[in-house]
Amino acid sequence: TRLHFFMHDMVNLQNPANATTALVAGPKNNLATLASLGSVMVIDDKLTEGPSPDSPLVGRAQGFYMSDSTSISSLGLFITFTAVLNNGTISLHGQDNVLDREREIAVIGGTGAFRSAAGYAIISTNKMIPPLSVILDVQVFL
Amino acid sequence: TRLHFFMHDMVNLQNPANATTALVAGPKNNLATLASLGSVMVIDDKLTEGPSPDSPLVGRAQGFYMSDSTSISSLGLFITFTAVLNNGTISLHGQDNVLDREREIAVIGGTGAFRSAAGYAIISTNKMIPPLSVILDVQVFL
Amino acid sequence: TRLHFFMHDMVNLQNPANATTALVAGPKNNLATLASLGSVMVIDDKLTEGPSPDSPLVGRAQGFYMSDSTSISSLGLFITFTAVLNNGTISLHGQDNVLDREREIAVIGGTGAFRSAAGYAIISTNKMIPPLSVILDVQVFL
Repeated sequence: TRLHFFMHDMVNLQNPANATTALVAGPKNNLATLASLGSVMVIDDKLTEGPSPDSPLVGRAQGFYMSDSTSISSLGLFITFTAVLNNGTISLHGQDNVLDREREIAVIGGTGAFRSAAGYAIISTNKMIPPLSVILDVQVFL
Repeated sequence: TRLHFFMHDMVNLQNPANATTALVAGPKNNLATLASLGSVMVIDDKLTEGPSPDSPLVGRAQGFYMSDSTSISSLGLFITFTAVLNNGTISLHGQDNVLDREREIAVIGGTGAFRSAAGYAIISTNKMIPPLSVILDVQVFL
Repeated sequence: TRLHFFMHDMVNLQNPANATTALVAGPKNNLATLASLGSVMVIDDKLTEGPSPDSPLVGRAQGFYMSDSTSISSLGLFITFTAVLNNGTISLHGQDNVLDREREIAVIGGTGAFRSAAGYAIISTNKMIPPLSVILDVQVFL
């Protein structure tokens, strides 16, 4: 099985009402930067068929990511979320080094049509929307 | 294999000493509401054989949940925890839309008697205890 | 398959620049203690071949742990992270009661050479480095 969708991670720290994310914690509660080790972002991102925000909605990515790199030359995120699709969910977990062209994370389970799912997902950046939003290309192999 | 137990999620924001949970983060550290996108609740909930709080203890649910819904018409939680039982643990991960009658989350692994477990759990609300506590009915299918 | 490595969890709340961890949340944002229910620690720990900090680097443990025990007689942590190795990653999830000699957590998936991994890991404390750092012995069975 191969699934393909696009994930719209809309970040707006100044006006969270226009975002699909919320920054909820960071080192010593300094919420000034996303890159600091420990910034935690909760997500309720739209998943669409194609890369356009107007493309048909196929589900949502619900969970969180957190910056977990002590290196200044990389931007590493620990990410885990549930891809909620119309016929079931897929649980994902792994390391997303966002500067890499392709990143692989693990499929760790699922529900509905995806019960006991195992496999992996390949994530790549489809589009950056400055300053902090991004559209991700997500391919899931089960 | 089918396991059945009840999970006592005791929330008391005013007096956390009487709770089995702790609210630890939220959007811009506004801890006023649990429903806001991003509120994070750490749990150490009792698991019992029957729905009564006095029913025999069979384990604990240890982990966390966070509100991850941008919609005002739903209350969605990302939840992941370890069900610590007397003969091993079961790891769970998924989306819990608490207003639905039955919710399904993924079993993503286990230890002891449950090593390499896969499957799913069905969660339903057994009892609300206002304002924010709840007893959940949890059935695990491996 | 059996993997064996050591995990260097370096905690320094006063000078996080010398740590591989960041304390990012806690109950009512009281960051004074790690033992309180709800303290959340993001990690980017070195994984080495042997127990010495100077032993060859084999990867990193990236993710987080949080204190999730309401009991004062134990120190329990919910822990989940990605072991990022040179030929792939292993995703882990479980309960780490740090006062126990051996703790078992679940392998919930993987990437690269470890795609669809299942199994478990045995963690024991190799060395305490007061006040809060620790070197862990980690054996992974797939």
